[in-house]
Amino acid sequence: MTVLQLRSKHCCYGGSQEFYKHDSKVIDLPMCFSIYQPPQVQHGRVPVLYFLAGLTCTEETFMIKAGAQQFASKYGLMLVSMDTSPRHTNIPGETDHWDFGAGAGFYLDATVAPWSNHYRMESYITNELNEIIMQQFPAKKDCVGIFGHSMGGHGALTLALRHPDLYQSTSAFAPITAPSRCPWGQKALTNYLGENQDNWRQHDTVSLIEDGYRTSELLIDQGLNDQFLAEQLNPDLLEKTCKKTGQKLTLRYHEGYDHGYYFISSFIGDHIKHHHNVLTKTD
Amino acid sequence: MTVLQLRSKHCCYGGSQEFYKHDSKVIDLPMCFSIYQPPQVQHGRVPVLYFLAGLTCTEETFMIKAGAQQFASKYGLMLVSMDTSPRHTNIPGETDHWDFGAGAGFYLDATVAPWSNHYRMESYITNELNEIIMQQFPAKKDCVGIFGHSMGGHGALTLALRHPDLYQSTSAFAPITAPSRCPWGQKALTNYLGENQDNWRQHDTVSLIEDGYRTSELLIDQGLNDQFLAEQLNPDLLEKTCKKTGQKLTLRYHEGYDHGYYFISSFIGDHIKHHHNVLTKTD
Repeated sequence: MTVLQLRSKHCCYGGSQEFYKHDSKVIDLPMCFSIYQPPQVQHGRVPVLYFLAGLTCTEETFMIKAGAQQFASKYGLMLVSMDTSPRHTNIPGETDHWDFGAGAGFYLDATVAPWSNHYRMESYITNELNEIIMQQFPAKKDCVGIFGHSMGGHGALTLALRHPDLYQSTSAFAPITAPSRCPWGQKALTNYLGENQDNWRQHDTVSLIEDGYRTSELLIDQGLNDQFLAEQLNPDLLEKTCKKTGQKLTLRYHEGYDHGYYFISSFIGDHIKHHHNVLTKTD
Repeated sequence: MTVLQLRSKHCCYGGSQEFYKHDSKVIDLPMCFSIYQPPQVQHGRVPVLYFLAGLTCTEETFMIKAGAQQFASKYGLMLVSMDTSPRHTNIPGETDHWDFGAGAGFYLDATVAPWSNHYRMESYITNELNEIIMQQFPAKKDCVGIFGHSMGGHGALTLALRHPDLYQSTSAFAPITAPSRCPWGQKALTNYLGENQDNWRQHDTVSLIEDGYRTSELLIDQGLNDQFLAEQLNPDLLEKTCKKTGQKLTLRYHEGYDHGYYFISSFIGDHIKHHHNVLTKTD
């Protein structure tokens, strides 16, 4: 069993906010994650909800800024978040770009060297981390949701579509919906997966849905004052594709809201309620 | 009228989270503050609630970490927080200590040079900043509360006791209640006010209450797993003094909770409701 190093622990809304570090086999380096255990774990196993954060964030960002614990406590969900990439890999140029490399793992397994040596965030999250959570915490099996923000919204949507047996509920805040068609995504996919765009489709939400992948009803919130909306996010493309294919989607636009955590915190309660509702039905 | 530089603005819970910088006459240097305007300002002036943060914090800390906007939006209160000291004063040693100097203004007007040249946080908050808020934002006069955390709890309690006409409601999280009798306070008071302890009484909550100062009913929350409880905070002294003198106090101890913002966020809703209740009665 993976040995976990408890870095800190804090009471929060009747539950426990904890930060861990461990040696990851998949990443081949130490990795950090955070977990909020709601008070309901005293009475048995609870559903788990993974949050995937955006560019430049760490395993701390969501737990500090989103105000999620209040709602996780209310609905009895465990929250798990993780760092957004491997760190200190010694790959040249790893920290040269804020939107690629460290802090920008894009939640996929890189196939191009040298990134492929460590940058395997999809396997880390869907296999190794999920196994740790299921084995070492009071998490209910087959009762797992995933959500995220921006790059992490892309991660949540693509992982949910690619691993329908693992994730029963999905939502996102301002996700990158079509990385093949925006500068952030093109840069990352080229460097992590190579020039052949056929290999990108498995890591692009719009392409996956076009190709027949499905997941449970999606809830997506998008601010209309988001500085990245026009160039990077493409929610209109996702909406059209969902309409055409029958993938269920609730896409809400919000006048005045931007891309940051003040936006996320305003709607976090709705998202956790969404996951609670879907996970309770499938329970 | 003071010219305010808007540094950033974010929609949050139907209201607006804003960050400002301005040249302060009282501090004789630029100062920064943050303000959350709830949606209710569309219909007229609203009560104002000042939050004073703890050692090492800035005007951002409370707005990012406490999850307060949700409740300010619900109850229709404006929130204001400010930096915890002047910055970049060129006073030698200003940044040598995390618990004195920069980030540790202790919410008083220093009387000892060189600190007295800039470290005048009491006058800044009670005069200059309050004037800015009343003149340039839709704040309701004579409907003002104050609260804070740790050093900022000390600030909130002492300013409320010293300025009863200005503040109608008061509360605190894990406040330094008797700075004359703890290491943090003794270091700060000695350096800012000099060796004569007679001058410290005006900046020590327990002493002020002993000396006959009063304010409206206090709400104080204190974690029992707070790493600073035994040495720095002395809630028992405050409780005894309140009992003896008739100052109304609700002091709540919380098993397992520590000194940080995961503790504050767990009870922030109760505090904002407390201020709402007191301010609505006095309205």
